Amino acid sequence: MYVVATPASNGIAARLARAIKADLVIVESKTFPDGETYVRVPQRLNDTVVVVHSLHPPQDSNFLKLLLVLDAVRGAGAREVVAVVPYLAYARQDKRFLEGEPVSVGVVLKSIEAAGASALVAVDIHAPKSLDQWLTIPHANAMPVPELAEYFKGKLQGDAIVLAPDAGALERAKLAASVLGVDYDYIEKRRDRVTGEVQALPKSLDVMDKTVLIVDDIISTGGTIALASKSALENGAREVYAACTHALLVSGALDKIYAAGVSDVVATDTVPSPVSKVSAVRSVIRALKEIGFIE
Amino acid sequence: MYVVATPASNGIAARLARAIKADLVIVESKTFPDGETYVRVPQRLNDTVVVVHSLHPPQDSNFLKLLLVLDAVRGAGAREVVAVVPYLAYARQDKRFLEGEPVSVGVVLKSIEAAGASALVAVDIHAPKSLDQWLTIPHANAMPVPELAEYFKGKLQGDAIVLAPDAGALERAKLAASVLGVDYDYIEKRRDRVTGEVQALPKSLDVMDKTVLIVDDIISTGGTIALASKSALENGAREVYAACTHALLVSGALDKIYAAGVSDVVATDTVPSPVSKVSAVRSVIRALKEIGFIE
Repeated sequence: MYVVATPASNGIAARLARAIKADLVIVESKTFPDGETYVRVPQRLNDTVVVVHSLHPPQDSNFLKLLLVLDAVRGAGAREVVAVVPYLAYARQDKRFLEGEPVSVGVVLKSIEAAGASALVAVDIHAPKSLDQWLTIPHANAMPVPELAEYFKGKLQGDAIVLAPDAGALERAKLAASVLGVDYDYIEKRRDRVTGEVQALPKSLDVMDKTVLIVDDIISTGGTIALASKSALENGAREVYAACTHALLVSGALDKIYAAGVSDVVATDTVPSPVSKVSAVRSVIRALKEIGFIE
Repeated sequence: MYVVATPASNGIAARLARAIKADLVIVESKTFPDGETYVRVPQRLNDTVVVVHSLHPPQDSNFLKLLLVLDAVRGAGAREVVAVVPYLAYARQDKRFLEGEPVSVGVVLKSIEAAGASALVAVDIHAPKSLDQWLTIPHANAMPVPELAEYFKGKLQGDAIVLAPDAGALERAKLAASVLGVDYDYIEKRRDRVTGEVQALPKSLDVMDKTVLIVDDIISTGGTIALASKSALENGAREVYAACTHALLVSGALDKIYAAGVSDVVATDTVPSPVSKVSAVRSVIRALKEIGFIE
């Protein structure tokens, strides 16, 4: 088995190759003066191939690069090609919210399959059912939440609780809480009748004297985390931490989050960022086992 | 019939709609803070739809945008969708020149078909056989060379000749020459045995006292045109003009071309540029007739 690293593998390819004792192959890549991408696989690959390539910003460029690599890998003799896509861009546009919109995640997934993937592993995709809906090839959704939770073992002082930013994200918080052996809840926004101020506090639990860990799939602008942190600290929380799988962190997000009193933010390495300290590789290995590509 | 304009239609969509008396629909488009593209078709489209969308730089972004628009148009009820792609990026990577390379044009064409195109019109694609090779849907290659040649009618003083930059581009020069009623030839590079200087001159014809029109598919760096112009002027040509379908014109190309003595450069509107003065719309109409979408 070969593991193919691309310029958007973020080290996950090499860690994976080492862990499963596969040969690592590094794709050559350059950009032509007119802006077109060139890729080349430097050797024959007459075996099963795992391509690790994330669709973080610049998403559109990384998307086409993935398709080119899949085609090149097929041309280099690969028998089966597993596309491991740590961050799957456009996953939030998973239905036509308004008439006339595309189902962008469907477009992305269908193209990946058409380009030659024979299986796909996503990491904490926004809606895992998108994979069932748009792929005919085997697929799995890797969940690195246990690894994110383990990062906080021994770091959370006193009573701790894990919070999901909304009811839809509760499963992720539950998983983290079970690793840490603490309670969990989801956050609800409420407007104070007197001050008009919006607060984001746990649905049922109290934050007083607690250490709060907010766990989400994506941190993009940081607005949700910042509001939840402010609310928790105003209501007596001892300290606030945040963890996410994908640290998209658009311009200014980290300063917004730290300014709101968050002590530390941690993410996985699916998207490059200053806080991407936990590798998603172990979750990818679990997912590859799930679809039978490694034992 | 509807004609759908996108941010990469360059006016061709509106000109086409007007010419064939179809309704023009303009796609809404924006970019999210994290860099993802959003598109929306603002109305139902229960008819045949022609989408005009060029893949000029930024190619990768325009590529994904085309796929999203095709999916949105399908979702808006379109029965048949003709993708008119005035500039088809990655068309030059039409085979595995070296082992381990992708066939990029195949990746692009297969994705367009998978996203919902039921027919495709390209304009002066690098190798028209790519369309036969990678598409199962009806397709045609629009040739705007007559329109480019017409631009020069009455402008070329004295005896004129049309030159192709290489033997492979001879058909394009022949077509332009027949419209202008002049001779044509292709350019060969020769190294002067005494000075060592490389010259690019017609294979058989003489340029002395002639007005030269070089006709190519793409001008990218401008190096080919600049060398041919210098050689022609050094060998007694009266004036040199250049025409191309796709004016990619990477940084500095136009100055390089004018510095080499070219009097005027003209291109079609498949790629936005300061010299894209001739519309490819008439060639697109001929191609749509060829595949039976208009009468």
